[in-house]
Amino acid sequence: MAELADRLADGEVSTEHAVLAAHRTDEAYLVPSGWPLCAVYAHSTADVVETMRWATEHRIPVVPRGAGTGLAGGALAEDGAVVLSLERMTAVRELSVDDRLAVVEPGVITADLARAADGHGLMYPVDPGSAARSTLGGNLATNAGGFRCFKYGVTRESVLGLEVVLADGRVITTGHRTTKGVSGYDLTSLFVGSEGTLGVITGATLRLRSKAVGPRATVAAYFPDAAAAARAPLALARDGLTPSFLELIDEVTLRALHAWQPLDLPGDGVALLLAEFDGVDADRAAAETGRLCGKLNAVATQVTTDEAESERLLDIRRHALGALERMGRTMVEDFVVPRSRLGDMLVEIRRIAARHDVLIATVAHAGDANLHPTLLFDRTEPEIPARVWSAADDMFRTALRLGGTLTGEHGIGTLKRRWLRDELGDDGTGVHQTIKSALDPLGIMNPGKVL
Amino acid sequence: MAELADRLADGEVSTEHAVLAAHRTDEAYLVPSGWPLCAVYAHSTADVVETMRWATEHRIPVVPRGAGTGLAGGALAEDGAVVLSLERMTAVRELSVDDRLAVVEPGVITADLARAADGHGLMYPVDPGSAARSTLGGNLATNAGGFRCFKYGVTRESVLGLEVVLADGRVITTGHRTTKGVSGYDLTSLFVGSEGTLGVITGATLRLRSKAVGPRATVAAYFPDAAAAARAPLALARDGLTPSFLELIDEVTLRALHAWQPLDLPGDGVALLLAEFDGVDADRAAAETGRLCGKLNAVATQVTTDEAESERLLDIRRHALGALERMGRTMVEDFVVPRSRLGDMLVEIRRIAARHDVLIATVAHAGDANLHPTLLFDRTEPEIPARVWSAADDMFRTALRLGGTLTGEHGIGTLKRRWLRDELGDDGTGVHQTIKSALDPLGIMNPGKVL
Repeated sequence: MAELADRLADGEVSTEHAVLAAHRTDEAYLVPSGWPLCAVYAHSTADVVETMRWATEHRIPVVPRGAGTGLAGGALAEDGAVVLSLERMTAVRELSVDDRLAVVEPGVITADLARAADGHGLMYPVDPGSAARSTLGGNLATNAGGFRCFKYGVTRESVLGLEVVLADGRVITTGHRTTKGVSGYDLTSLFVGSEGTLGVITGATLRLRSKAVGPRATVAAYFPDAAAAARAPLALARDGLTPSFLELIDEVTLRALHAWQPLDLPGDGVALLLAEFDGVDADRAAAETGRLCGKLNAVATQVTTDEAESERLLDIRRHALGALERMGRTMVEDFVVPRSRLGDMLVEIRRIAARHDVLIATVAHAGDANLHPTLLFDRTEPEIPARVWSAADDMFRTALRLGGTLTGEHGIGTLKRRWLRDELGDDGTGVHQTIKSALDPLGIMNPGKVL
Repeated sequence: MAELADRLADGEVSTEHAVLAAHRTDEAYLVPSGWPLCAVYAHSTADVVETMRWATEHRIPVVPRGAGTGLAGGALAEDGAVVLSLERMTAVRELSVDDRLAVVEPGVITADLARAADGHGLMYPVDPGSAARSTLGGNLATNAGGFRCFKYGVTRESVLGLEVVLADGRVITTGHRTTKGVSGYDLTSLFVGSEGTLGVITGATLRLRSKAVGPRATVAAYFPDAAAAARAPLALARDGLTPSFLELIDEVTLRALHAWQPLDLPGDGVALLLAEFDGVDADRAAAETGRLCGKLNAVATQVTTDEAESERLLDIRRHALGALERMGRTMVEDFVVPRSRLGDMLVEIRRIAARHDVLIATVAHAGDANLHPTLLFDRTEPEIPARVWSAADDMFRTALRLGGTLTGEHGIGTLKRRWLRDELGDDGTGVHQTIKSALDPLGIMNPGKVL
């Protein structure tokens, strides 16, 4: 480690207990992690290169990490690994208005880039729930989603190119400064979402977009239950309505929110669909959405273009997890079903909750049918109870049976490895292992994650 | 070959001279190709599996192909290879309105899917110039672009998942039926655009979108020269205007069009910018674009919502290559520069034309700064003259120097292999070779293409 410290230009190596303790976990609180050998704070790409060369020479595993806000255990340390923190690489190297792009280092906080873009009349639309704390490097490693994906896509859709340090310390750049480009294989997409198992992302060229013009318009529609609310996104899509925010809050979640901070609800046990529109057509689209929800038997509908009232409504969704966390310990899940099966999946979740005797509260990015059921259990439980694991297992298998996928935006990490083969199949898993071995022959890049 | 024919369930093997002649080339007319051993017409995934198993056993190269409309020589046969035609796998296996997707076989003609989607009130937006003849399999293999990419993205942005037969005959499915999904590596993107060098695409789940509502609005703006016209796309982007079609036609091309079928031009030597808007805001956006072009010293501007007049204007662009082909033999190029450098690149092209004494006529997908310069030379030339190659070389190096990329939508194929290392770098090329060897260890998948 002294040798490693010598080789770093600006970076630092720490073996302090408090530093190791702070860098051995992420927000997959319930999964055990090991104790790393040391933590490296990289200040530059050169520091990452030296760290990877040293790790290759000594065959020491490396766990890259950003702010540690991941929910799937992708940044959990293992015993004897080097934790490589990118959080001090915080430069926005470039922001070009005409080329509509930013070149960033991985430690830039997501919301900071959004603010910088906004200051230039542009938008960085990717908006994960943790945007105020998460780093772009972590967003890239997990292909993070968030509230605006239905209209603006996930992180991948905003990446033009990457700088990546490979396991042996070679540095490659992938992609382009241009939006289009088909020269060679799409390595950019291969590294995005690979959760640190193929290389370390040390830079990214990110696409910025035009800021939506005009006032936003927001719709809140209350339905008798979540499955009824789930019919609305299909009706919106049929009418070509594309909200920038489309969230479903089921009756269990809404009751928890109401118990915390009383809401003006049209009845007990209702579910809520929230839609926001941006752009010149926002007003008309919101009014049309309100009408559609009425036809689909919404018990109450509100349409507003008032900024403060809009924020109050969207805050209901933003506070959902906070309200649930007051009720006990939580295991937040993340999977996707085909759009047409959102209602079916919500009905299945009710059945699964009853079958395994677990309280499950569900919110969903409804436009993409990306569900986040939260499984609740008592604070006194020393670890995740078996019935919670079986309920989760039941949900994953049901989502796959309905044609869905195990994770929409949190990643596989440590938490979902055991189910991945069910989704990929044996040959699909084999191809993943082939690519992993080809790029990381010593198996030192974030071992034990994803595969 | 008799053994292969026996093993195919429905497919056919042909060694007829006329069949081989028809399947040894694509539309990279100027590049020499070899004579294949035989042509296989696959009728099913099982046929492709048997072909690849047989090819692996006998170590025989396989060149997959669709309609042969590629412009970069990605489907050129080599001596002794099997040409594997997917053009008879033409089923649309599924079209789901609620899930907004189609599951297709690779031989479906691009325009046929667009029509099928349209019949269900949906849109398949990818619109390459060859859409009436090209197959979706070919579009996927080259990550084809076209006229609508600026607003709707290239082929990749419309792919949810693939069925791929690997070199050894294993079949994998990649991606999802859902829009979001981050389970495992993004193998979908790895195969899209890999030009048949990593596997054979035998099926695809493609994303469909809402059809734009309301009448289209079209703008034609004439500028003193192409570089002046190139300032308009930047101004549009700054104002958040996103046309569904934004094409630049330089003065050389416009003169050729006018010589063929006289146009109502406001002067000799002018360049034309064509913009079309769809959606509820089309009218306002087109009027605003007309005003912006006026401010940027357009010599004449026309804005119309008349369908027939719109079509007449867009046809000017569609007929550009036809008009140029009347003037001699053509070599159509394809590269991209950062948006801010479109004007600079157009100026450089004029200099390069003069320096190498080659007539160069340029059209561009202007929103993405994807240029298609056509190099013209005499029909009597037996092969591509050296000065044409040097002009092309000069253009590619200039595009790379300006921060661009070698190809925006045609691919590397055979035509651009010699320049690829200049763009990818040695380590980037090394990673490409590592992935190629990992997935195709015998090197039988479309050898000699891309790398």
